[in-house]
Amino acid sequence: MSALATEQADFVNALNTELDSFLDRQRDLVSGISEDVAPLLDSIATLVSGGKRMRALLAYWGFRAAGGEAGSSAAVQAGVALELFQGAALIHDDIIDRSATRRGRPSVHQAFADRHAVERWQLDPVRFGDAAGILTGDMCLSFSEEAFSAVGTPTAFGTTARTIFNRMRAEVMAGQYLDILEEVAGPQRTVTGAAARARTVLRFKSAKYSTEHPLALGAAIAGAPELLLDELARFSLPLGEAFQLRDDVLGVFGDPDTTGKPAGDDLREGKRTLLVAFLRELGTQEQVALLESRLGQDSITDDDVASIREALLESGALAAVESEITALGTASHAALEELPIPELAREALRQLGESAVKRQA
Amino acid sequence: MSALATEQADFVNALNTELDSFLDRQRDLVSGISEDVAPLLDSIATLVSGGKRMRALLAYWGFRAAGGEAGSSAAVQAGVALELFQGAALIHDDIIDRSATRRGRPSVHQAFADRHAVERWQLDPVRFGDAAGILTGDMCLSFSEEAFSAVGTPTAFGTTARTIFNRMRAEVMAGQYLDILEEVAGPQRTVTGAAARARTVLRFKSAKYSTEHPLALGAAIAGAPELLLDELARFSLPLGEAFQLRDDVLGVFGDPDTTGKPAGDDLREGKRTLLVAFLRELGTQEQVALLESRLGQDSITDDDVASIREALLESGALAAVESEITALGTASHAALEELPIPELAREALRQLGESAVKRQA
Repeated sequence: MSALATEQADFVNALNTELDSFLDRQRDLVSGISEDVAPLLDSIATLVSGGKRMRALLAYWGFRAAGGEAGSSAAVQAGVALELFQGAALIHDDIIDRSATRRGRPSVHQAFADRHAVERWQLDPVRFGDAAGILTGDMCLSFSEEAFSAVGTPTAFGTTARTIFNRMRAEVMAGQYLDILEEVAGPQRTVTGAAARARTVLRFKSAKYSTEHPLALGAAIAGAPELLLDELARFSLPLGEAFQLRDDVLGVFGDPDTTGKPAGDDLREGKRTLLVAFLRELGTQEQVALLESRLGQDSITDDDVASIREALLESGALAAVESEITALGTASHAALEELPIPELAREALRQLGESAVKRQA
Repeated sequence: MSALATEQADFVNALNTELDSFLDRQRDLVSGISEDVAPLLDSIATLVSGGKRMRALLAYWGFRAAGGEAGSSAAVQAGVALELFQGAALIHDDIIDRSATRRGRPSVHQAFADRHAVERWQLDPVRFGDAAGILTGDMCLSFSEEAFSAVGTPTAFGTTARTIFNRMRAEVMAGQYLDILEEVAGPQRTVTGAAARARTVLRFKSAKYSTEHPLALGAAIAGAPELLLDELARFSLPLGEAFQLRDDVLGVFGDPDTTGKPAGDDLREGKRTLLVAFLRELGTQEQVALLESRLGQDSITDDDVASIREALLESGALAAVESEITALGTASHAALEELPIPELAREALRQLGESAVKRQA
C-alpha cells in the first residue's frame, strides 16, 4: 500500500470507530428513556455505516492541505459531523422524494413503514414511517452539530470553521427548497431561465455542500488563511458541480444494480435538473410535451422513462451535460495543480476528484 | 409596573428584537442564493413572532436565579435559541400530526400547500407543503443551534449548558417518537402499562423540554453549580408535567377560539395521553370500545369526539388527570418556596408556574 493509501485507510478506520462510538453513546443515553427508542439510533447507524465517505475525506485532505497533522482527532471528529449531516440530509431527502431505497437498502422512513406493517400496528404505515423518519432525521441533524462542536476550540463560536458549517447547513436547505420549488413551479417559469435555475439548485443543494464546504471546513480547522480557502474553492466548486451533474446523469441513466436506486428515479421524482432544462431548450416540441406531461407524475411508466431517455440522447441534452462535466473536471483539475499544498494532499484530492466525476453509483 | 414586570418586559423586548435581527441576517444570507428562498425565512419569522415565550422566560429567570445580571445579552441569546428550537419542533410536529393550524394561523406546511394551490403549481400541493415544511423545520433547527453557540463561552463545548442543550434535543425527539409509536402500537400493548408509557412520553416529549431544561440552561449559563440545578428541577419537572397534562386536557376539552386548534384535536390525531390511558383503565367496556374504534381515525366525527369527551368525564379519567395536575402543581410550588434563590426570581417563577398550569390555551 502507498503512503497515501495507508494514511487514508487509517483515517477511514478512525472515522468509522469514532462514528460507532458516538452513536453507541447516544444509544445508551436514549435507551435510558425507553428501549423503544433504540430503532432510531439503529437506523442512523445502519445508514451512516454505508457511503463513500467523500465529504469526510475531503475534510481530512483539506485539513492536511492546510498543514494539519496526519491522524489528528480533530479531523476525525469533523468527518463524523459531516457524515452525520449527510445522513440527516439523506433521511429527510428520501421522505421528500418518496425514495423507498437508499444505498441498496430500504430508506429510513420506508424501514419504519415496513416495521409498522410487519408488527400489524394500527393506523397508517406510510404516515408512521414518514413521522419516524422526520424525527430520526432531526436527531441525526442534532447529532451532527454535537459532533461538530466536539472538535473543540477550532470550531468554537466565531471561528471560520463554524461560519462555514452554518453556511453549509443553510445553503443545503435553501438549495433543497429551490429544487422542490422548481419541480412544482418550473413548468410555469421561463424555459430560457430553466438552466440558470437548475445551476443554482445544483450549486447550493449539492456542489458546495458535497465538496467546497467539507474541504474548506477541514482546512479552516487546520487554521488555513482566507486566501487558501479561496484557492481551494477554485478546485472544489467545479468538482462539486461536475459531481452533481454526474449524479443527475446517473439519476436518469444509471444502472439500478449499481446505484441502489430504481431506474430513471429522478424522472419519477420530477427533478428539474440541468438535463431537463437542456431538453426543454433543445428538444422538439413533441419531446418537450412528452417530458412536461410525464415528469414527476405518479403514473409515469417504464416506457415513459425510456422515451424521455431517448429524447435526452437525441436532443443533445445528455451530450451537453457530459461536455459540461468534462469542462468542469478540467477546470477543477487545472486549479488543483496550481494549489500551494503538499504533494500528498494534492494526489489524494486528485484521486477523490476522479472518483467523484467518473463514478457509476 | 412592578420591578418584576418591568424587567420581564425589557427581556421580552430584547428577545423579540434579537430574534428579528437574527432572522433578518439569515434572510439576507439566503436571499443571496435566490429571492425564492425568502418564504422559508418569512414562515419561521411569522411562527416565532407568536407564542408565550415561556421557555425563554424560564431560561431568563433561571439565569437570574443563579446570580446572572439583569438584562444580560447571554440570556437573551439563549432565549432566541430556545424559541427557535421550539419553532423547529412545532413545524415538524404539525406535519407529523397533520395539524393545519398553529397559533390560530395556517401551520407552516399548510401555508406552503396553500400557496401551491393559489399559484396553481404542478404536482401535489400536500406533498409540496410537507416537503417545504420539513426543510423549513430543518433550517429552524440549525438556526437554533447557531443562536445557542452564539452565546459564546458559557455554551462552548464541554460546558454544562451545552450538555443540557444536547440532552434536551435528543430527549424531545425520542419523546416524540415514543408518542407516535404509542399511537400505532399502543392498542396492542398492555392496558396496565399504558399510564406509565403516557407518563414517559409527557416527561420526555414535553415536561423536561418545556420547563426543566430551559430553566437549567439559563442557570447553567450563569454558572449554577450542579446542586442548584438539581434543586431547580424539583420545581420545574413537576411544573412541566402539570403543564403538559393541562395541554392534554385542552387538546380534548379546549375551546378552539382560545387554543387556535380544532376541537378535540388530540383525539383526531390519535394521541394516547394519560387521559386516554386512564379511560382504558377506568372506562366501561363500551366506552373503551368506542375509544379504540375512533381514536386517530380519519373518519372520526364531531359526535365521536363528543362521546369520547363524555366517557372521559363519566369514567373519572378527566378527574384523575385534574387531580394529578393539582398534586404536581402543589409539589412544584412547595419546591419553589424552598429554593435558595433571590426573591424576585422566585416571584417570577411563581407567576410563570401559575400561568403554565391554569392556562386556557
